[in-house]
Amino acid sequence: MTTRTTNTRILPLIIERWSPRSFTGEAMPSEDLEVILEAAGLAPSAYNIQPWTFLYAHRGDEHWDRFLSLLVEFNQSWAKDASVLLFAVSDTLARGGSEPHPNHSHSFDAGSAWQNLALQSAHMGYAAHGMTGVDFARAASELRVPADHRVEAAIAIGKQAPADRLPEMLRDKEAPSGRKPVGEIMRAGNFG
Amino acid sequence: MTTRTTNTRILPLIIERWSPRSFTGEAMPSEDLEVILEAAGLAPSAYNIQPWTFLYAHRGDEHWDRFLSLLVEFNQSWAKDASVLLFAVSDTLARGGSEPHPNHSHSFDAGSAWQNLALQSAHMGYAAHGMTGVDFARAASELRVPADHRVEAAIAIGKQAPADRLPEMLRDKEAPSGRKPVGEIMRAGNFG
Repeated sequence: MTTRTTNTRILPLIIERWSPRSFTGEAMPSEDLEVILEAAGLAPSAYNIQPWTFLYAHRGDEHWDRFLSLLVEFNQSWAKDASVLLFAVSDTLARGGSEPHPNHSHSFDAGSAWQNLALQSAHMGYAAHGMTGVDFARAASELRVPADHRVEAAIAIGKQAPADRLPEMLRDKEAPSGRKPVGEIMRAGNFG
Repeated sequence: MTTRTTNTRILPLIIERWSPRSFTGEAMPSEDLEVILEAAGLAPSAYNIQPWTFLYAHRGDEHWDRFLSLLVEFNQSWAKDASVLLFAVSDTLARGGSEPHPNHSHSFDAGSAWQNLALQSAHMGYAAHGMTGVDFARAASELRVPADHRVEAAIAIGKQAPADRLPEMLRDKEAPSGRKPVGEIMRAGNFG
């Protein structure tokens, strides 16, 4: 349990999930990644379009160095010890039946799949850490993402390691982050 | 369990969650909504910005009819029996410290919170159903959502009722939807 909330009615996994930076660097069996991504794909999406695609590299494979190089330097400094790096990509267009047209919720739906990914990772003893400290223009080009798709985020997954494995400047940050009080994110009726 | 997957390694709640349309119309205690939204707010977000806000109306309150009227007619036909209607709104700008600037993942992060909301609802015996069949322009204006915020989706939450409570044309659709095989949503290395 973290200090984020003491509400015992909340699904424990939702409270326990957080985004560490210290990873062991051990290999992830490809079956585990498949289970995690199958869970991601069970997220809901508008018209069940399932706009998400996950590009992945396992640590040390032929894609790894290139994937890592697309992160900003700060993220490279810790994500290098993850087991898997991914880029979550969404299809910006709805293509079923009619002429392709913009899908209002392509990013929102991909985010829903990402949260399933994070929770399923935690359920299996892994930790997932999302990143937007990414060179998105270079990522889209290097990863040959079509112009009608969007690179939403990078994701590191691995087995969590003790904080003291991190460079000193990162050790103090190695804790679950706080949250706004729920009263600040809910409003009866209008926004303003 | 649904027929979506037989993978026993996936968190059961992720498999069991789906988006029904048949709801009992019973009232939801406001404490329950707070727990559900607190769980939503525990989602990760870039730089912990937490860009999400949830506007809500309880069935029959002074906001309800207006909230319902912002859905397309098809969604009104069943969402009228939900307990709570919400609009998920995201702040498109990152505001911390520096000049406000575009937040790459405002929709993606709001989607992550939405998935927590859906799973927490299921955990508490409710069902949540997201919708983009919404008059988004009118919703933004009616709900006084500022121009630098985005209405991402509408959400109905309630207690699930038997399918035969629905109009006949909706009964056959009242089942968990299928999913792409996981091999179609994961790619080693480049997208194309």
